[in-house]
Amino acid sequence: MSYTRQMLETYPRDYGVDSDKLVACIDACYDCANACTQCADACLSEEGVAHLVKCIRLNADCADVCLATGRILARQTEYDANMARTALEACIQACSSCGDECEHHGGMGMEHCGVCAEACRSCEQACRDLLTAIN
Amino acid sequence: MSYTRQMLETYPRDYGVDSDKLVACIDACYDCANACTQCADACLSEEGVAHLVKCIRLNADCADVCLATGRILARQTEYDANMARTALEACIQACSSCGDECEHHGGMGMEHCGVCAEACRSCEQACRDLLTAIN
Amino acid sequence: MSYTRQMLETYPRDYGVDSDKLVACIDACYDCANACTQCADACLSEEGVAHLVKCIRLNADCADVCLATGRILARQTEYDANMARTALEACIQACSSCGDECEHHGGMGMEHCGVCAEACRSCEQACRDLLTAIN
Amino acid sequence: MSYTRQMLETYPRDYGVDSDKLVACIDACYDCANACTQCADACLSEEGVAHLVKCIRLNADCADVCLATGRILARQTEYDANMARTALEACIQACSSCGDECEHHGGMGMEHCGVCAEACRSCEQACRDLLTAIN
Repeated sequence: MSYTRQMLETYPRDYGVDSDKLVACIDACYDCANACTQCADACLSEEGVAHLVKCIRLNADCADVCLATGRILARQTEYDANMARTALEACIQACSSCGDECEHHGGMGMEHCGVCAEACRSCEQACRDLLTAIN
Repeated sequence: MSYTRQMLETYPRDYGVDSDKLVACIDACYDCANACTQCADACLSEEGVAHLVKCIRLNADCADVCLATGRILARQTEYDANMARTALEACIQACSSCGDECEHHGGMGMEHCGVCAEACRSCEQACRDLLTAIN
Repeated sequence: MSYTRQMLETYPRDYGVDSDKLVACIDACYDCANACTQCADACLSEEGVAHLVKCIRLNADCADVCLATGRILARQTEYDANMARTALEACIQACSSCGDECEHHGGMGMEHCGVCAEACRSCEQACRDLLTAIN
Repeated sequence: MSYTRQMLETYPRDYGVDSDKLVACIDACYDCANACTQCADACLSEEGVAHLVKCIRLNADCADVCLATGRILARQTEYDANMARTALEACIQACSSCGDECEHHGGMGMEHCGVCAEACRSCEQACRDLLTAIN
């Protein structure tokens, strides 16, 4: 069992969100943040780095938004639904923009972009699932 | 002249955003992130910390969103308007929620909350100004 | 297979670090960052929050250092050993300080602190293992 | 007066660090983090981006370490000298590595690297001053 779930199960108060969707979304945010950081770095090591500038930029943005969102979702004390909602919307947008760009390069043989696109799509879906649950 | 403006003036390409509003917003995001981090810490040092739990939690969220937003706005290469817009909307929400809570405690004699409320209000306004300019 | 390993296996250049230790350390940094963020939040929900102020503070520091370290380690391009080393040393210190404090409260019945202490100990060990490997 | 100083002046407890050096160091950490984020972005917009890969990588690391250090220093509650010391040491290393690389490119006509080198040098010095004061 992941620490995320263990921490949630030892949380001292009730919380109003579906715990499976919450754990999945927090974990997806951290996984995607890390994949994006690694993808930006891998792009910098490619000979054709000049063609990957947009990918590197979106990777950096997506990592930042995913980390902020994962941290906000991890906080259940004095939960603020508007805060969670706008963070999730920003995260869905970041994962969508970055996922599109990575998928494009993944289809042209950049394997790390293909893996990162998967991480972005998973995170986008986990955010959508949680957003639906809290609306 | 701040580094933010100097860096923008030496940026090698054109960018489509009003530079005064952009510099003001980036600086406000970092200032607010720092004020919120300091306010959470000051709240932890108050005897009545149990009454400041919501403030500490919103401070932490607001700092995270402001930093992510400040970093995204600082990137002008392959600018993605949707990314900027949703980040700004999340930041406006965070500054509004945190600013309301801090203002409340500021009015009851918590001076650090009063200062932090100012930082939140300034950042919220700078984000609104930039959001209007890019829409 | 985690994204961390998949990303590393599709990295386009050679890198000079043991890949098992590197993957373990990156994952441990993100896991610990998240556990600490959740522990700080759980502490804020405890009735005896006033006795958990030190824990909340160290949780926040440890989360920040772990995230910075995880991100630095994820970057293998133009690898800078001194950067990696000092980041790992700061991370070992943060995990040690936070782990001690969490372990103390875990032993007194705060279950979330007990889980967080485990995450801190694992991360500290993963950092030590990697530091030994790169020295 | 900056928010950093106002927040420190309304902090409810005593703290054992020289306040001028503390404020200078926190502000320098945030300024340097932002300059590095902007420099990485400006490098990505240069035609010769392939020659700036090391600079982009060190910019990213330096921004991460500066933010973590700035946040740790902003927390005075239950101050942990070992935490502050190792964070400052990592920050000095990051600013030194990144400052060297930026200075090199600044001397070859990359103006944004020259400005960023200044931000790195200032932050390195502010960290050294504070480290001396707390040792």
